[in-house]
Amino acid sequence: MKGCLCIDVPKKIAYNSLKCVTKYYIGDAKMRIDQDCLGKMEVKDDALYGIHSLRAVHNFPITSEKVHPAILESMLEIKLAAAKANLKADTLSKSKADAIINACKKLIDNHDYRAFIVPAIQGGAGTSTNMSANEVVAQLAYQMTDIKIHPNDDVNQSQSTNDTFPTAGKMGMLKLAPKLLQSIDNLINQFTELSIQHQKTIKIARTQLQDAIPTTYGRSFKAYASLFKRDYKRIRNAAKNLTIINLGGTAIGNGLNASEYYQNNIVPILSEVSGLNLQQADDLIDATQNCDSFAEFSGALKTLAMNLSKVANDLRLLSSGPQTGLNEISLPKKAAGSSIMPGKINPVIPEVVNQVAFEVIGKNLTVSLAAEGGQLELNAFEPIMFRDILTSEEHLTKAIETLINNCLKGIQVNAQYNRKNVEKSAITATVLTPKIGYEKATSIVKEALNKNISVKKLVLDKQLLDSATVENLFSPEVLTNCDNQDSAIQ
Amino acid sequence: MKGCLCIDVPKKIAYNSLKCVTKYYIGDAKMRIDQDCLGKMEVKDDALYGIHSLRAVHNFPITSEKVHPAILESMLEIKLAAAKANLKADTLSKSKADAIINACKKLIDNHDYRAFIVPAIQGGAGTSTNMSANEVVAQLAYQMTDIKIHPNDDVNQSQSTNDTFPTAGKMGMLKLAPKLLQSIDNLINQFTELSIQHQKTIKIARTQLQDAIPTTYGRSFKAYASLFKRDYKRIRNAAKNLTIINLGGTAIGNGLNASEYYQNNIVPILSEVSGLNLQQADDLIDATQNCDSFAEFSGALKTLAMNLSKVANDLRLLSSGPQTGLNEISLPKKAAGSSIMPGKINPVIPEVVNQVAFEVIGKNLTVSLAAEGGQLELNAFEPIMFRDILTSEEHLTKAIETLINNCLKGIQVNAQYNRKNVEKSAITATVLTPKIGYEKATSIVKEALNKNISVKKLVLDKQLLDSATVENLFSPEVLTNCDNQDSAIQ
Amino acid sequence: MKGCLCIDVPKKIAYNSLKCVTKYYIGDAKMRIDQDCLGKMEVKDDALYGIHSLRAVHNFPITSEKVHPAILESMLEIKLAAAKANLKADTLSKSKADAIINACKKLIDNHDYRAFIVPAIQGGAGTSTNMSANEVVAQLAYQMTDIKIHPNDDVNQSQSTNDTFPTAGKMGMLKLAPKLLQSIDNLINQFTELSIQHQKTIKIARTQLQDAIPTTYGRSFKAYASLFKRDYKRIRNAAKNLTIINLGGTAIGNGLNASEYYQNNIVPILSEVSGLNLQQADDLIDATQNCDSFAEFSGALKTLAMNLSKVANDLRLLSSGPQTGLNEISLPKKAAGSSIMPGKINPVIPEVVNQVAFEVIGKNLTVSLAAEGGQLELNAFEPIMFRDILTSEEHLTKAIETLINNCLKGIQVNAQYNRKNVEKSAITATVLTPKIGYEKATSIVKEALNKNISVKKLVLDKQLLDSATVENLFSPEVLTNCDNQDSAIQ
Amino acid sequence: MKGCLCIDVPKKIAYNSLKCVTKYYIGDAKMRIDQDCLGKMEVKDDALYGIHSLRAVHNFPITSEKVHPAILESMLEIKLAAAKANLKADTLSKSKADAIINACKKLIDNHDYRAFIVPAIQGGAGTSTNMSANEVVAQLAYQMTDIKIHPNDDVNQSQSTNDTFPTAGKMGMLKLAPKLLQSIDNLINQFTELSIQHQKTIKIARTQLQDAIPTTYGRSFKAYASLFKRDYKRIRNAAKNLTIINLGGTAIGNGLNASEYYQNNIVPILSEVSGLNLQQADDLIDATQNCDSFAEFSGALKTLAMNLSKVANDLRLLSSGPQTGLNEISLPKKAAGSSIMPGKINPVIPEVVNQVAFEVIGKNLTVSLAAEGGQLELNAFEPIMFRDILTSEEHLTKAIETLINNCLKGIQVNAQYNRKNVEKSAITATVLTPKIGYEKATSIVKEALNKNISVKKLVLDKQLLDSATVENLFSPEVLTNCDNQDSAIQ
Repeated sequence: MKGCLCIDVPKKIAYNSLKCVTKYYIGDAKMRIDQDCLGKMEVKDDALYGIHSLRAVHNFPITSEKVHPAILESMLEIKLAAAKANLKADTLSKSKADAIINACKKLIDNHDYRAFIVPAIQGGAGTSTNMSANEVVAQLAYQMTDIKIHPNDDVNQSQSTNDTFPTAGKMGMLKLAPKLLQSIDNLINQFTELSIQHQKTIKIARTQLQDAIPTTYGRSFKAYASLFKRDYKRIRNAAKNLTIINLGGTAIGNGLNASEYYQNNIVPILSEVSGLNLQQADDLIDATQNCDSFAEFSGALKTLAMNLSKVANDLRLLSSGPQTGLNEISLPKKAAGSSIMPGKINPVIPEVVNQVAFEVIGKNLTVSLAAEGGQLELNAFEPIMFRDILTSEEHLTKAIETLINNCLKGIQVNAQYNRKNVEKSAITATVLTPKIGYEKATSIVKEALNKNISVKKLVLDKQLLDSATVENLFSPEVLTNCDNQDSAIQ
Repeated sequence: MKGCLCIDVPKKIAYNSLKCVTKYYIGDAKMRIDQDCLGKMEVKDDALYGIHSLRAVHNFPITSEKVHPAILESMLEIKLAAAKANLKADTLSKSKADAIINACKKLIDNHDYRAFIVPAIQGGAGTSTNMSANEVVAQLAYQMTDIKIHPNDDVNQSQSTNDTFPTAGKMGMLKLAPKLLQSIDNLINQFTELSIQHQKTIKIARTQLQDAIPTTYGRSFKAYASLFKRDYKRIRNAAKNLTIINLGGTAIGNGLNASEYYQNNIVPILSEVSGLNLQQADDLIDATQNCDSFAEFSGALKTLAMNLSKVANDLRLLSSGPQTGLNEISLPKKAAGSSIMPGKINPVIPEVVNQVAFEVIGKNLTVSLAAEGGQLELNAFEPIMFRDILTSEEHLTKAIETLINNCLKGIQVNAQYNRKNVEKSAITATVLTPKIGYEKATSIVKEALNKNISVKKLVLDKQLLDSATVENLFSPEVLTNCDNQDSAIQ
Repeated sequence: MKGCLCIDVPKKIAYNSLKCVTKYYIGDAKMRIDQDCLGKMEVKDDALYGIHSLRAVHNFPITSEKVHPAILESMLEIKLAAAKANLKADTLSKSKADAIINACKKLIDNHDYRAFIVPAIQGGAGTSTNMSANEVVAQLAYQMTDIKIHPNDDVNQSQSTNDTFPTAGKMGMLKLAPKLLQSIDNLINQFTELSIQHQKTIKIARTQLQDAIPTTYGRSFKAYASLFKRDYKRIRNAAKNLTIINLGGTAIGNGLNASEYYQNNIVPILSEVSGLNLQQADDLIDATQNCDSFAEFSGALKTLAMNLSKVANDLRLLSSGPQTGLNEISLPKKAAGSSIMPGKINPVIPEVVNQVAFEVIGKNLTVSLAAEGGQLELNAFEPIMFRDILTSEEHLTKAIETLINNCLKGIQVNAQYNRKNVEKSAITATVLTPKIGYEKATSIVKEALNKNISVKKLVLDKQLLDSATVENLFSPEVLTNCDNQDSAIQ
Repeated sequence: MKGCLCIDVPKKIAYNSLKCVTKYYIGDAKMRIDQDCLGKMEVKDDALYGIHSLRAVHNFPITSEKVHPAILESMLEIKLAAAKANLKADTLSKSKADAIINACKKLIDNHDYRAFIVPAIQGGAGTSTNMSANEVVAQLAYQMTDIKIHPNDDVNQSQSTNDTFPTAGKMGMLKLAPKLLQSIDNLINQFTELSIQHQKTIKIARTQLQDAIPTTYGRSFKAYASLFKRDYKRIRNAAKNLTIINLGGTAIGNGLNASEYYQNNIVPILSEVSGLNLQQADDLIDATQNCDSFAEFSGALKTLAMNLSKVANDLRLLSSGPQTGLNEISLPKKAAGSSIMPGKINPVIPEVVNQVAFEVIGKNLTVSLAAEGGQLELNAFEPIMFRDILTSEEHLTKAIETLINNCLKGIQVNAQYNRKNVEKSAITATVLTPKIGYEKATSIVKEALNKNISVKKLVLDKQLLDSATVENLFSPEVLTNCDNQDSAIQ
């Protein structure tokens, strides 16, 4: 180790993991030597993190992405709650408990996760994340108080990665859920508003992309609102299952090394600390090894993604053209659409929604593979599940927001064009069926299409029905079978 | 058309689709000519099916698999219920209604779906299936009564493929669900029984496949029971959402051509006819075009599949060996395991469970792709969704049954071997941590492994703790942190 | 065993598996007792199959689908080739070898696989399939010759399920591949023909569903041909990798119990017997345990499926309407499209193609999960891989055939309508850019759209360019930048 | 726009997109006003990017991740090559061409992509990325030369996003491929080295996790090397198909607005500029709209991921224990394995490899969905494909590197333990089969297991074969059927 200068161990040095021995200078950086059961490593002297965090950085150089702040905050809340419980259980001294609590509070209140250098994609079933929380809190607590805090014996007391990491993961998902639910709610409201606004705008429905009977844009937009109401419910329910945690189970769910008081009280205390309404699982062994609740939540996100993709497809289809497409609606113009074709405008917002949907569906597969890959008493693959679920929540939230703000809010329905479509559509002959039968109506449709005249005119010409009946049958109200809610059709 | 002999139109000939004209002989088969809006086709004279079914056979020659009987039965129940409703609504005569009802009953009661030749994988969004039901019922009703029944105007009255097909699909899934739920319940009971039976059998837990603290087989089996309890709930809840149907919506959900009476009463009538507790969707437009409830149900099946796969993996792992594997449990011997290695026995039942799980997970992707592919007022891809969901329900049911009957029921836990594992495991040192700290305990583990002696012996040798304390700490009860439920450990 | 009557062992009884002891009558069926290392079972006396096949039926009651004939035929070819090689190696007597060879030939020549009752979805890594081939051949050989043939020692000599089953699976895939490749070739030819036929039919291209510069239908159809040429190549290349087999590896690839002669000659002999050009893998251990060649082949099928789905989507989109959709092309009418909407016709053929594509993509996930799930020296999940790959090959073949015969062959391009689209499209202004710049052209497009006049007229009105230049720029030849191949545009 | 101060247009201001008008101060930032066909926006005055980039930031606020540098570098190489070609074609002046070329060179040489603020996940089929390259280059060129360069007319001359973006995407993938291939090659070498090192280390093979005949670690490691050789080949071949690009096709592949010289020469020029061996596609229309080459390349990455996952699973399984698992090998200790269980060490490196594999498999689904989603003349979803493929390449590279460096290099095979396993394994009786038959051998295995003595001893005790024969049969050489390459077994 060239160019290093040994110096005395300074006054302020906490246990980092097992032992922190000496200090060096490397270039300008003052280094200390941390030690764990595997050996020694140099750590920047002013680092709150220690050897375990640094090993993770060396072992898992896959991505520069760090563990999500929502997990880190939750992990710190767990450490804080554990200190409270251990204090009450009389297994941790007041001075140590206070030191830990204050260190956690400081980090949480400042949203300061810079000391957490552990990569998001990591082996070890989250041990690195937990160890890193332990050593950061121990070091900071020591710096704040001069009391020596042991990362494992004190900060991690009554805990294991087996219970803290999945708990922190669930808490992280729960913390991101309200924003997503809010955005879905906004989406529902936006579609409801559009539905009211275009309640009377008649249009041709299409089944299998072929002209079908008339409907209204009010109904179309309302159908989207109805769809996303189910997504809201589905995600909220799946999130509810995430509130059931295995904290108190310590290793494998056995609860070993945790006091009875701790086991009975840690979850309520954590609920209070975090503001989340958490519950301890009945079967902690099961709750520790199985990841179906993650798969379920990810599945609910996937279904939302699929639905968003379907709606984005519809929007792109309905706004296609403008001259040689369906051109029923116009989306707000958000960007010049081509570097070569002047004046071209593309549906860029639905397109980005589609892509986020594809991303989330892909991530659901990743989560599924990881969840299926658990073995015996633990699933080692929670880190990738957490990364992909949290990212999915965030990307879906943002995709919905840009869909609302940059697309739906400025959507124009080309009412006159839609009305003309209805007038010329031969499929309106469906209203004739109860009067003249399916076979006769079929021949009318054929003749109208061949002669290129409207069905209505043909029926009048042929005097199949009296004129009043025909006028009534081909009125927008009858064609769309409107009820009281949307009676007066444009 | 060589070798054909024209004969007169016979007395007994119903409307098949549009028109049935003449009869021929081809070889030995007496043929009739059916006609629809596209032209004429020869149909076997004694066939209940007609031109629409035959076109489907020609158009969709993908697989010999027919539409699932659960869908056909449901479709017939819909036709029956519709006739009842239309009769009450006074849009169908009593004689026709009775003819339709009796024809449906005959087919349903005899479970006779031979006339339904339409392939399971079909284009047309289920139109072929619906048309086939219409023409089979019309033909049979006519044969039974001499009353001319029109497939569309009479049998299909107040209906559209848009509402009958998804309704029949949902009903089919609901009909297969109880068997699946029953098998999951049996699985839960089997694991619970195993859990009780092996409540006191101590074993080494493994996290990340590495030796962890001791647990019991009672807890392991109970964890599986707990896991599948959630699957039961998840599938039951997802099935509940399938009870919300769009019948009464006719085309696109507008309800066109259905009387008010029909619309308000068809679902309760169908509930009575089918014995299923069905509800009409609030938003029929939405319920007609969106397939998220299928995706959700398929997702619940997929999660079950993942969980079965995890448990199958565990069983295969725990029974590995027998001589050079984990060998903790022995599965019943079900087949000679090798054509070349004498005496080899393999875990064939968990292996087939894994494969069914992979199949179901694949089918969930198919369903997801199909559900996402809906456009505007309809999703054209319901046939493949229905095929894959119904197959998944059946295969999962059967996989669980063979798992219970051919594997779990005869499982042996090698108790003595497991106990020896516990005794030699250095990780039992975890119980020392609250007494001597994480670092000291770590060095004890290292030393015990190096010296190849038990941790307990090393602690006694080193006189780290008094002998009574050590005996207590290393007792099965303390090691497994047992509670009242499973206190006395073997 | 009530109602059974013991009778003497008849003259003609071969070894079935280990031993065949006695015979009974159950009802009308004459039963014999077969025995293996696990115990005894009743087998129908005239059954060619024996106890191993029957155990499979009991153990794997998932599906009624049997092992694919292409695998069974291949397995019999392996047995036949092995007998030839063992005879030459002098490890099998001439009389036994001949008996085995003749029995195999009889089954293969008659395409008679009725004795193979083993289900397609099976545990045991194919052992049941191999054992079933061994016992059927042994029994038939005995019946044909009176020579006692042992299923394992004779029929299976020098073989293991570890090498015969994956080899048979690969051979099965190779046997179905030519039909698939032929259908792809037909598809390429069909699109090429359409391309030539519509070489001069100008149309508006669309990027991101928005109007873009003009192109021709000749180019559109040619692009599909080009696409499927790559699929052809991709599948052929992936199939080529399937010709590398592990036969001769016996158990785990070690080649134990196979003579040197056999090992060196079995693959050439099998090539001759089967007509397939097979090669022995260099590393038999690797070739026995890894399934990446299946994943690769399945991946090539998946890419074809994706491409078919894209093209089916295009066809449905271009034929949408007919009155209120794109209506650029008309697909052949293949079925009445609605039970309620008279005269409606749907694109049922592309729709079934989409669904087969979704099915194949789902099956690719199943194959991927199974291939990833291999452990150590073997992958136990080949049965589901083989089932899903073979089904995919068949369904893709049939989907392509129905696409060609029932859709592409009768496709109509609405040339006049397409030309009108081009004439009115403002995006034709792109040709102006090199003359007047992107910004000016942009303002021209805006003005033309606002005034609802053609760009050409506007440019002439504004005298931006001289009339001859304008006429030239807006000629179909310039607009489509046609080259010599497709110079004269309609 | 409160608090803004209008100032004069400064001397140095290029065209940004359509027009850059005025400047403001917002707080401390000097702002200019850029204009495009949709309106005006404020842009930081010293920004090289312009209004199009900024719109992308506003429209696509999904992720903070920017477009990958490998794509940006490639896009700049395209702009540079295009300027060269346009200069030669005499459609761009020398001064403008030089200005563009020098600006591109400066950015490329400095790897300075700070001006590219466009997010990786974007709608618009890459238009934002292309527009951003156009405006950054135009602005920088202007700043460097005082020559006014138009982003579209000059920088983008003869190009479209339709051809530049997919070309840049393919180039990006090609640029990351060599590192990945190198890492696979390193992996092959590492396994080959391990294979040589452990050539003679005998061990028990396991099929279906059950004890099988003996093999050697030399063979096991060699099998992994053989496996990854195929991945190498597969990825290299799939990458080769990425060298076929659609540059010169401009919009939709028609080649409109590009000179003949440009079309014929742009690809060779780009090959020279980039050092990549690129080829122009024969069918540019096809090459513009279809994304199967991305799906194929992503599929090759997925297969690698599956194989890595299988090997990681094997490593975790073989190193399981150490006391109650297979314990055949020991992986290097890389991190303390538990925060609660002292001395526990986990296989963290294979675990992170598994997770990267799951991630890549998920991303392959995303790519598949996006590729299938193309419509008519373009696929709008290339941005997410490119993001996920490039990330997959990088993560796989790094996962392999950490697997080699942090796991494989330090792997220990516990030779003595493995040898003992072989000695006690009853399945070694397989060598007896050719001598005594399958049935007799089966009964020997049963008896040996029941009596808990070795098969060898039992055979000697029973005097089934003479002692010399037995010694020979149960020698490591015969048991493993070793050949010349690995003859002397430990």
